[in-house]
Amino acid sequence: MKVFLVLAHPESQSLNGSLATYAAKVLEDAGHEVKVSDLYAMKFKAVVDGDDFQEYNEQEKMKWADVLILHFPLWWYGMPAILKGWVDRVYAGGFAYWVGEYTPTHQSDRFGEGNMAGKRAMCMVTVGGKAENYSARGIAGPIDDLLWPINHGILYYPGYDVLPPFVTFDTFPGHVPPERWEKICADMKERLLTLDTTEPIAYRKQNFGDYTMPGLELKPGLEQPGETGFAIHTQKAPPANTAA
Amino acid sequence: MKVFLVLAHPESQSLNGSLATYAAKVLEDAGHEVKVSDLYAMKFKAVVDGDDFQEYNEQEKMKWADVLILHFPLWWYGMPAILKGWVDRVYAGGFAYWVGEYTPTHQSDRFGEGNMAGKRAMCMVTVGGKAENYSARGIAGPIDDLLWPINHGILYYPGYDVLPPFVTFDTFPGHVPPERWEKICADMKERLLTLDTTEPIAYRKQNFGDYTMPGLELKPGLEQPGETGFAIHTQKAPPANTAA
Repeated sequence: MKVFLVLAHPESQSLNGSLATYAAKVLEDAGHEVKVSDLYAMKFKAVVDGDDFQEYNEQEKMKWADVLILHFPLWWYGMPAILKGWVDRVYAGGFAYWVGEYTPTHQSDRFGEGNMAGKRAMCMVTVGGKAENYSARGIAGPIDDLLWPINHGILYYPGYDVLPPFVTFDTFPGHVPPERWEKICADMKERLLTLDTTEPIAYRKQNFGDYTMPGLELKPGLEQPGETGFAIHTQKAPPANTAA
Repeated sequence: MKVFLVLAHPESQSLNGSLATYAAKVLEDAGHEVKVSDLYAMKFKAVVDGDDFQEYNEQEKMKWADVLILHFPLWWYGMPAILKGWVDRVYAGGFAYWVGEYTPTHQSDRFGEGNMAGKRAMCMVTVGGKAENYSARGIAGPIDDLLWPINHGILYYPGYDVLPPFVTFDTFPGHVPPERWEKICADMKERLLTLDTTEPIAYRKQNFGDYTMPGLELKPGLEQPGETGFAIHTQKAPPANTAA
């Protein structure tokens, strides 16, 4: 497989940077081809402006790769600015959006279709805070909801199949002694060596009957009972009692 | 009042830029003092790096102002990189986080306390897509959930009282004829002239009994029946049947 890893951490010797180095090695040792865009090392221009040009080089890497990995620390509950700028600048019209027909009943090829259809993508994220803070009732909000705008809005949008994220919590300096580091690496390795077989998140496709046209609202009754918010846009297996 | 408006749009003649210009004028005409940081015009450095310095100038404007306004277009379901970079760089340790005591039962002054306590903040956002796409069942996800990491994670975190956002949908070129523009301006003016009286979003305070310590998970039973996700972190009025 061909893997494109986009890294957005300023310090290669940090925990986050070390995990990225480890990830590239695991993939290469397993015989995969890996391209890394280390955005800080590249001094990547983060800001879209009126004089901007298309980022063909990064687009080519996206086209080349079977798998895109976004590797970043969670800063203020989102991506670092340099990675957001990578998205803002690389995801150009005609490449990531404004793809395919635009009619009232087919508002372009996106959310399940698009130029990245058939490829896979995954976030690998380090989080300073503890997992409890990001649990279903944690004060930071559920990590899956915080990552939803990235997983659904940035990765699923141009057609990627999105794998569940690999998230490492509690990463402040001193919180990762050697035995924990070994465990994190083993868990990450497991995920990296199953990139091609891991079940993607079952987001609903835009243009295949689940949404009203042209409003793009989920049709009534498709969600699970009581389900609200981002969660309704993911298909679930039927509840156990209906399968019995 | 003193208002600090942070603007993150590359084109001052755009709809978004024009609304920011209008907002500043409305506030000044009403006798308020206004400072604007036009991040593109300032060529604001968006990327935190190892050689970084504290952004004292922007911090001083935050301390000076009674109200902070973040004015931006929604790009890829979040802030433009230049504004995320403003947060990443201005929100420094000791100023926006690591404020106050850090113990297992008081994990710093944040989420309801902090250096910005007593001040107010609001997002003013333009969105290309239509409102239906961002409704409770819309494919983009509910706009309040998309903005939650900003409203709760960035504005509420250092202590701001967060006002409901002012969101303008369907802003693609040609979609805002003069009569719609007048309506948008009138609505915005109404919000700007009530900045000091608008009821803030009733986020729950971290350190006043609603959360477990040290896990910071919402204690059982405080949410509304059936409520999940980000919504549980906002206090609601009691259901009508318990008030009766």
